[in-house]
Amino acid sequence: MKKVKVYVTLRESVLDPQGSAVMGALHSMNYNEVTDVRIGKFLELQIEESDRDLDTAVKEMCEKLLTNTVIEDYRYEVEEVAGK
Amino acid sequence: MKKVKVYVTLRESVLDPQGSAVMGALHSMNYNEVTDVRIGKFLELQIEESDRDLDTAVKEMCEKLLTNTVIEDYRYEVEEVAGK
Repeated sequence: MKKVKVYVTLRESVLDPQGSAVMGALHSMNYNEVTDVRIGKFLELQIEESDRDLDTAVKEMCEKLLTNTVIEDYRYEVEEVAGK
Repeated sequence: MKKVKVYVTLRESVLDPQGSAVMGALHSMNYNEVTDVRIGKFLELQIEESDRDLDTAVKEMCEKLLTNTVIEDYRYEVEEVAGK
């Protein structure tokens, strides 16, 4: 069994209104040392062994469903999980 | 300048309907090897040096604003960023 951690973030060139809103809130709480906030998605997938290549499958899942490749980038990490 | 990466995830005991929906979609795309999907938030904060202790400030920000501590857990990592 594998655990795949996927990090989806907006591309640098894309405006992040949600991040700006959070930064504004942090500033109103006197955390003025915060100079930028970017918000993305964090997914944890548990994947069983299969005859399909894991990297190929994860890339396909990310590009077909989990991310909007026009405005988002993704990266992932694979961890071994003790069999459940 | 520091970059703080915050990972916000639902507690294990909390149902994740969004994760279940994504898993259903992955199964309908024949990725049946996926046995669980958990979705959370991933935040990147850029924080300038200040007289306030960084860990204290980050924990406060997380617990006051960035997470709902009743149903969410968080962890964070701190990276040094070349001065901008």
